[in-house]
Amino acid sequence: MVVYSLGNIEKMEERFRAKFINSLSGFKSANLIGTQNKEKQTNLSIVSSVFHLGASPALLGFVSRPDSVERHTLENIRATSFFTVNHINQEIYEASHQTSARYERDISEFEACGLSDEYINNFFAPFVKESKLKMSCEFIREIPIEENGTVIVIAKIKSVHVSNDVISDDGHIDIEALGTVVVSGLDSYHVTDLLKRLPYAKP
Amino acid sequence: MVVYSLGNIEKMEERFRAKFINSLSGFKSANLIGTQNKEKQTNLSIVSSVFHLGASPALLGFVSRPDSVERHTLENIRATSFFTVNHINQEIYEASHQTSARYERDISEFEACGLSDEYINNFFAPFVKESKLKMSCEFIREIPIEENGTVIVIAKIKSVHVSNDVISDDGHIDIEALGTVVVSGLDSYHVTDLLKRLPYAKP
Repeated sequence: MVVYSLGNIEKMEERFRAKFINSLSGFKSANLIGTQNKEKQTNLSIVSSVFHLGASPALLGFVSRPDSVERHTLENIRATSFFTVNHINQEIYEASHQTSARYERDISEFEACGLSDEYINNFFAPFVKESKLKMSCEFIREIPIEENGTVIVIAKIKSVHVSNDVISDDGHIDIEALGTVVVSGLDSYHVTDLLKRLPYAKP
Repeated sequence: MVVYSLGNIEKMEERFRAKFINSLSGFKSANLIGTQNKEKQTNLSIVSSVFHLGASPALLGFVSRPDSVERHTLENIRATSFFTVNHINQEIYEASHQTSARYERDISEFEACGLSDEYINNFFAPFVKESKLKMSCEFIREIPIEENGTVIVIAKIKSVHVSNDVISDDGHIDIEALGTVVVSGLDSYHVTDLLKRLPYAKP
């Protein structure tokens, strides 16, 4: 085992360091965030930083870099308050990755990347039709991270769209059965194999 | 596909809802956080919420519930500023899950769960010897989430310990080769199978 000190890390070439550091937190969730601006221009962005924030109330968060390809997503969320979160499955991971390209504002990643927008129950933001677990979300607030200029977006989950077939009696959702993929680093996509579900741990 | 509205979600039985909502963000990272208090009492806690926050400077975050089994971890980080993050691999996922039991303060989860503490280069907090990718971290600050009483802990990565064999020429670390596991919901553990690494996307 080799030890990389902070000095070693700071001397790494920029793109090397980005890939190295992005691998450290472990595997990451793979979601598409769907938004629309007030002129009905849709936007779709792959995000590997969506995280569970709480079950009661149902909250999630994600990290956004304002200067990145996610900037249209963040602008739309600030302007309209609504977005969707859509699990990426193994049939659409390549199309989903393509949404990370720097498209111009007047181009919809849905069309450019071959994914279908879908509107459900009059919710303002577009869902991804090909996704098998999707949520509508409402913006609560953003937390600026002064250390690097990113923001953490916090939102409440308003609805969940999923087949009953994958929901266990105890509430657990078998997202492996949905083909939900997982990301490591900046660009590595994986499916999963269940080891085991473990019982509630007691001392 | 069934639509669960906010009303449906709020009516779910509490433990059912916890498992249901915990499944929604997608797969989660699986890490052990090692700490020590000023009296050298060690603590080890499984955390599925560690997320990448930035590569330059190298930052990560995680979500902690102050009233949960993670409270000793949070207290130790507040008191000493230092902790380690250790990837959970398939050889230790059952022992790692066991650290989520509510042990008393004077019991070390290292001993209780059969994992080995390890001290490297005089860093204050204990590493997990059995882990194949581990980091030393220094607390920067915590962000209170008033919506549910959790806190987001933000920290800088001070050192990274990993075998050179799994680091690609471009900086990507093959954490699948390390046997790093992934969590879904509250208690489901999975290994991964690489689909593909994808090239940088261009319009």
